Amino acid sequence: MRTSIATVSLSGSLTEKLTAASRAGFDGVEIFENDLLASPLPPREIRARCADLGLTVDLYQPMRDMEAVPDDEFARNLRRARHKFGVMGELGADTVLVCSSVSPLGIDDDSLAARQLHRLASLAQDFGIRVAYEALAWGRHVSTYDHAWRIVEAAGHPALGTCLDSFHILSRGSDPRGVEAIPGEKIFFLQLADAPLLAMDVLQWSRHHRCFPGQGGLDVAGLVRHVLRAGYDGPLSLEVFNDVFRQAEAGPTAVDARRSLLMLQEAVGVVELPEPVVPTGVAFAELVTPDAEPVAALLGALGLSRTARHRGKPVDLWERGEARILVNTGPAARRDGTGLAAIGLESPDPQAAARRADALLAPVLPRRRAPEDTPLDAVAAPDGTELFFCATGRGPELADWRDDFVPVTATQAPDPARIGPARVDHLALTQPWHQYDEAALFHRGVLGLHAQESVDVADPYGLLRSRAVTDADGGVRIALGVGAAPADDTLHAQHIALAVDDVVAAARAFRAAGGSTLPIPANYYDDLAARHEFADGELETYRGLDILYDRDAGGAFRHCYTRTVGRVFFELVERDPGYRGYGAHNAPVRLAAQHAGRQARRTAG
Amino acid sequence: MRTSIATVSLSGSLTEKLTAASRAGFDGVEIFENDLLASPLPPREIRARCADLGLTVDLYQPMRDMEAVPDDEFARNLRRARHKFGVMGELGADTVLVCSSVSPLGIDDDSLAARQLHRLASLAQDFGIRVAYEALAWGRHVSTYDHAWRIVEAAGHPALGTCLDSFHILSRGSDPRGVEAIPGEKIFFLQLADAPLLAMDVLQWSRHHRCFPGQGGLDVAGLVRHVLRAGYDGPLSLEVFNDVFRQAEAGPTAVDARRSLLMLQEAVGVVELPEPVVPTGVAFAELVTPDAEPVAALLGALGLSRTARHRGKPVDLWERGEARILVNTGPAARRDGTGLAAIGLESPDPQAAARRADALLAPVLPRRRAPEDTPLDAVAAPDGTELFFCATGRGPELADWRDDFVPVTATQAPDPARIGPARVDHLALTQPWHQYDEAALFHRGVLGLHAQESVDVADPYGLLRSRAVTDADGGVRIALGVGAAPADDTLHAQHIALAVDDVVAAARAFRAAGGSTLPIPANYYDDLAARHEFADGELETYRGLDILYDRDAGGAFRHCYTRTVGRVFFELVERDPGYRGYGAHNAPVRLAAQHAGRQARRTAG
Repeated sequence: MRTSIATVSLSGSLTEKLTAASRAGFDGVEIFENDLLASPLPPREIRARCADLGLTVDLYQPMRDMEAVPDDEFARNLRRARHKFGVMGELGADTVLVCSSVSPLGIDDDSLAARQLHRLASLAQDFGIRVAYEALAWGRHVSTYDHAWRIVEAAGHPALGTCLDSFHILSRGSDPRGVEAIPGEKIFFLQLADAPLLAMDVLQWSRHHRCFPGQGGLDVAGLVRHVLRAGYDGPLSLEVFNDVFRQAEAGPTAVDARRSLLMLQEAVGVVELPEPVVPTGVAFAELVTPDAEPVAALLGALGLSRTARHRGKPVDLWERGEARILVNTGPAARRDGTGLAAIGLESPDPQAAARRADALLAPVLPRRRAPEDTPLDAVAAPDGTELFFCATGRGPELADWRDDFVPVTATQAPDPARIGPARVDHLALTQPWHQYDEAALFHRGVLGLHAQESVDVADPYGLLRSRAVTDADGGVRIALGVGAAPADDTLHAQHIALAVDDVVAAARAFRAAGGSTLPIPANYYDDLAARHEFADGELETYRGLDILYDRDAGGAFRHCYTRTVGRVFFELVERDPGYRGYGAHNAPVRLAAQHAGRQARRTAG
Repeated sequence: MRTSIATVSLSGSLTEKLTAASRAGFDGVEIFENDLLASPLPPREIRARCADLGLTVDLYQPMRDMEAVPDDEFARNLRRARHKFGVMGELGADTVLVCSSVSPLGIDDDSLAARQLHRLASLAQDFGIRVAYEALAWGRHVSTYDHAWRIVEAAGHPALGTCLDSFHILSRGSDPRGVEAIPGEKIFFLQLADAPLLAMDVLQWSRHHRCFPGQGGLDVAGLVRHVLRAGYDGPLSLEVFNDVFRQAEAGPTAVDARRSLLMLQEAVGVVELPEPVVPTGVAFAELVTPDAEPVAALLGALGLSRTARHRGKPVDLWERGEARILVNTGPAARRDGTGLAAIGLESPDPQAAARRADALLAPVLPRRRAPEDTPLDAVAAPDGTELFFCATGRGPELADWRDDFVPVTATQAPDPARIGPARVDHLALTQPWHQYDEAALFHRGVLGLHAQESVDVADPYGLLRSRAVTDADGGVRIALGVGAAPADDTLHAQHIALAVDDVVAAARAFRAAGGSTLPIPANYYDDLAARHEFADGELETYRGLDILYDRDAGGAFRHCYTRTVGRVFFELVERDPGYRGYGAHNAPVRLAAQHAGRQARRTAG
């Protein structure tokens, strides 16, 4: 099926929007009237620009408050329509959207609405244009799709059909099954948008909080199935009004939009994509740093050992059990200071995983960086983090990413008696503020992970949001975080949480090896004492080691933090098998302690 | 009456919050539990810090889901309460807030709730503490203030009273008159918050969108009158959860909060402030610029003449009729590039106006900058713009600000035949993104202006909001604008709109004198032709001169824009007397044209 996107869904000038839509692979666009009015290009040139970009102009929507109005008002409307149909001819748009009237002049008279729409359709027909009549959820007298269809049916004009919009239908809780009763050839257009489930005024909800299908809580795929069963064969077109997208760059937003539509098409069975290959674990996390010293000191204190070095690049492998950290000091370190640049995901079929990512528009990275390297499948996530699909010790048929690493014999071998991490529990990545929803959709669609609920976390200087994506077994857990606004994203560090069997022993060993834990205020422990019962001395132990505690219905969670190096810090985590969270209850205390630490360093420095 | 503020209303660490509250003149604070838990200071030190800052600790709120729960749960709650009462003793807080339970364990049994609250109050009494029970608007079984009061009355314990909260009462549409039936001594606490009138889930509304009294749409003053009539004599305490305030600096937010409370106290008659002195016109607008050349060229083309120069400072007066612009090239120009730094407001009583501003915590600026200057009353608005209260030619009893200016005889006198502006129509000021509501409240409270509705304006790169404050006669009109998020505020320029009798003649004269108008796309005029009927040639005239057109029920508005110099541009405005707006309908086209101009300059440069 053809895909289309409304220009209002993207930011920038009209030409920027058209370019972004074309590059993301859309077949057509809906041109929003304000974008045309504000463009220095005349309609004919816009048409030519679209043709050059391989885009059709699928819809134009210049008309409001058209039908069921007094005669003199309707005469003015027809005059306006005649002008606009002329513009559409130059623009090469053959379908015009007419939304149900919200005018205070509107008359509650379906036969008047049908007569006037019939008259409008006759005029449109003279210009070779079709009229698609749509029920706005907040229309004055017509607000449901079946009502709009009854009027279209009564009008009985070949150039008049209906336009269906997933937001208007689903936001009102209308039963979408009735769509199947509409003859497919009378469904002139289908607009798609999702939205988070917010209990709020529907007009505000629609204007500010729409999102791409799969990012919200509406069953857009369910609606599309009904529309396809009705026999609709026009484009699937995204029309999304969203305050954040208005500020984000058009290029990435258009790609996210197309990805969302591809996933929707896959869900309803009109597009076949390579199956998702769900990763089963974290093979490694890769830090880039201009200065390996502080990172090495931290990893050593955490109980990891430097065991190997890449044979062609300045990359060290640190490990203990299945916890593996790469430390990259090469010039490829693109980011400022120390940061988390890549994640290796243990994949049952790395090449198939990369094929799906590619089909879902993730930028695929070169399989080899150097001729002698083992080929590695990798893609870039929306936030720039590189995701490697790899195999670790899974037999001769799957290349092991460690084959490029040469053991370091000079340093001490890992001490088996030393308490330390066994594997990565989770990774926390800070997203650009305008890519929170996109990030979750990407990780769901590309990696086949499951997205948990978003939680709000109070930071002393703003409200953060965090949402985890996981596989079914908890082998891969990634927490996607974002600040409340485009403030300084770098304030909120990334982190790597390492799973330990005994956080008390691990924290003691870390301290004994010279590590510093993030200081947690005594008041926090007084509150723990009030909220939970502990064994004798347990709380004092936690207090002495800066260990935090949380509990849900499934069990307990004990964790402590290291100091931050660059943009990264580590967490040691002891998780009861049934505990599902990430200690979000403790995050405000952690964030305040990190701010206090930064301020102290600033004062000292 | 004493005033107080909840620490959750301000950003930063607990000590930053306390300092801000003290400096803004609050008498006390409510300490929010998370702020205490995250603080490295033990409760005793927090108490000492508050005492040093002249603050009492009026309330502590550590308890949730306390009452009407099964016995074993209540036993745990009492254990928790005992811990917290101990902390409160150290903190010096004698009132604890207990919100109505939202627990799924909660039992719908008022007598059980009353028995358990009686038990809790007895325990509290042992610690010298009072329990204030409050109905949360989304409480599971108790959600209205009268219901909470019935339970408190039934419990009948001297250490148990009720806490009233304006948001919880007014957001549900409860009739606040019933408050007067509660004995004043049983109202232990009063929390105040306003909120914009949003139709949305009350919990989300409360957690993210509360604001200070007068910034929203709730009748907070009306509620306070009822509470005072009931005999309440405790503090008026602000408890505001707001995503924006969480990110804004604590100091200015605390001042805004106190100003809001002062205006509320004035409204209910418990504080007397100097009467507002409403300005009657714009005496001047002052531009600062490092380079007078481009500004002088622009003003000259607009038809203003340089008539005088300040006798002690590098400030020129440009004028025509009552339109007066000061151009300041002195080192006091604190801003980067060319910007609007000050506004002279024609004031019936400048000194009284400054007294009110001072009483409402506006920073008062020195009356004289140099010994020989005429004294001038001035204050700083929240965005840093200096507001001068002045008189222009109003007789010997009021000093004329122009007395410090010496006529410039060398230059040409204004040509009376030249078409040009007659006065300032309006000024548009860009506010820091987190001060939109504060700015409107400031201009209402300090200047006695009326605030119009906020309107959304689509910019190609985000959604802007704009709200005008005006006097009754339209002598002073200030449009306060803000971007949707803390993006680059400077992108959205300030502007000065000059009123002309005939915008066509004025635009022609401006062009003839070498001025360039902002180019408006032809598509805009095609749309005008579709929407309105014009006399023969009228539209072509507008198109030729880049004049935009708007119309409301009261009349028409014709306007055009100059190119931008630094952060400032000018608008020429012909306003029918009945037209109330500012051409917001045309703003998206204007913003797109300005972006296009910037991009063209970047490409060229």
